[in-house]
Amino acid sequence: MNLNRVLIYGMGLMGGSLALSLRKKYPDVFITAVIRSEKSKITILEKSLANEVFLQKELTSPDWTLYDLVVFSTPVESILQIIPTLPKSGNTIFMDLGSTKETIVSAVEAYYGSNTHNYISTHPMCGSEQVGPEAAVPDLYADKLCILTPPQSASNESLEWVRVFWESVGSWTMEMDSKSHDETLANLSHLPHVVSTVLVNVAGANTTTMKEVLGSPKPITGGGFRDMSRIAGSNPDMWISIFKENKSFLYQSIDEFIHQLTEVRDLLKPDLPFDEGKIRKFWELALLNKEQIRKSK
Amino acid sequence: MNLNRVLIYGMGLMGGSLALSLRKKYPDVFITAVIRSEKSKITILEKSLANEVFLQKELTSPDWTLYDLVVFSTPVESILQIIPTLPKSGNTIFMDLGSTKETIVSAVEAYYGSNTHNYISTHPMCGSEQVGPEAAVPDLYADKLCILTPPQSASNESLEWVRVFWESVGSWTMEMDSKSHDETLANLSHLPHVVSTVLVNVAGANTTTMKEVLGSPKPITGGGFRDMSRIAGSNPDMWISIFKENKSFLYQSIDEFIHQLTEVRDLLKPDLPFDEGKIRKFWELALLNKEQIRKSK
Repeated sequence: MNLNRVLIYGMGLMGGSLALSLRKKYPDVFITAVIRSEKSKITILEKSLANEVFLQKELTSPDWTLYDLVVFSTPVESILQIIPTLPKSGNTIFMDLGSTKETIVSAVEAYYGSNTHNYISTHPMCGSEQVGPEAAVPDLYADKLCILTPPQSASNESLEWVRVFWESVGSWTMEMDSKSHDETLANLSHLPHVVSTVLVNVAGANTTTMKEVLGSPKPITGGGFRDMSRIAGSNPDMWISIFKENKSFLYQSIDEFIHQLTEVRDLLKPDLPFDEGKIRKFWELALLNKEQIRKSK
Repeated sequence: MNLNRVLIYGMGLMGGSLALSLRKKYPDVFITAVIRSEKSKITILEKSLANEVFLQKELTSPDWTLYDLVVFSTPVESILQIIPTLPKSGNTIFMDLGSTKETIVSAVEAYYGSNTHNYISTHPMCGSEQVGPEAAVPDLYADKLCILTPPQSASNESLEWVRVFWESVGSWTMEMDSKSHDETLANLSHLPHVVSTVLVNVAGANTTTMKEVLGSPKPITGGGFRDMSRIAGSNPDMWISIFKENKSFLYQSIDEFIHQLTEVRDLLKPDLPFDEGKIRKFWELALLNKEQIRKSK
């Protein structure tokens, strides 16, 4: 695989880890980073995440043809702003790591129309509650799923190139169209983050709980709460962007969650006899769903 | 600490692990197990969780005075049935590992009245999605919180004995009254289990998600969903018991969760402009609550 020069927009956990994976697999690669603010520049250079770093304002019109690969690892909104500035010809492969696909893919399709292009939208599923280039690690993508979403008119060669690329850094890939991606991710990623966040705020709003919590020298929580709260409140900028970009599917997922949770709550109504059978059925259905989704027994 | 003979009712993960912890700390201890069904007998003996095993029907009126310590590690309902059969004098220490406290403590107080007794209700917070004596491990209680809830008229000596006992197997302890325990645990343990269970059922109810899930050779989930679904649907018998015993506090917690989640959902209403500030505030509040509850930065 020919990979000499790579341009990465955004050097947070994802972009930075991609740089480290690249260095491991392609030791001679020359990486150019474009970042928004000065403050992470030192970390990026110290960790060798890039050979050169530009602020966005310093590189407003990059010469795209210099690069074999350009990666957009910024919030979706800023990717949407860049798309209409991309070249309509050349061999450079473009890809993003956006958490939602519909708006990006629509923008690419609107821009390129029936012109063949080399833009493949991708979503490596390895987010973390950690952020920033300090947290970057070379094996973030190993054994992780990277979802590939080719917009219309993407060349077969670019799709194949991007697949081989992700597999070369240790990921496994599957294709998903943008709508299926966003609906599936609303349920398997976005809703869990919302629910985790609400969970800690519900505990935080309970006076008795917080009195005990604050009176205890160590956490009162068991493994359940610990796991369930890990992703709460993490990375607000990214999540605000996901909320915006996946508004309607996320609305539907939350709505269904409220609907199902209300059914559970109502089984506990003070004046009703306790319907053990319904709870058991609900619990057993969850075991079945969990096995299918996690592919584990 | 004088610990020669111990009687353990119920040899699942918790009772079995307690047996292993006891053997490690008190190598000469003689453990008697009382179990409900024949099927785990072989595992219990093979793993040396007990020196002798009785079925419940074989030991209907135990001679309590034989034991230094009697541990009830069964669902709360069956503990409630045993309490009125306990002796009103003697040196035996009684304790349970029940996940809820109100009904147990009320039953103990109703039974003993103003008689001094040695019954201390305890809650070691080390549940797991694993069940049964097969899953028992000697360090389950190491570094875990064990909540102590002494009923009225419990002797100071028994409370002190039970505290030293739990600390001797590696736990740290705090005292909590039964109402505070059940309200706090509704938020920090029971609600998370309900929410995890609903989460997988919401994903399971979504056709697009399940089509992608079933079409993929490996799990589509990232770390978020994996952590958030770990405890879903686990151990239905125990959870049905918790639902029964902590009905009203759990109802309140779920109700507050629905209330807060509805507020988040409504921020995503199709015709409303997206209120970034409110989401950010909610997310930042969660970070603060999470730090306080988990005592981590």
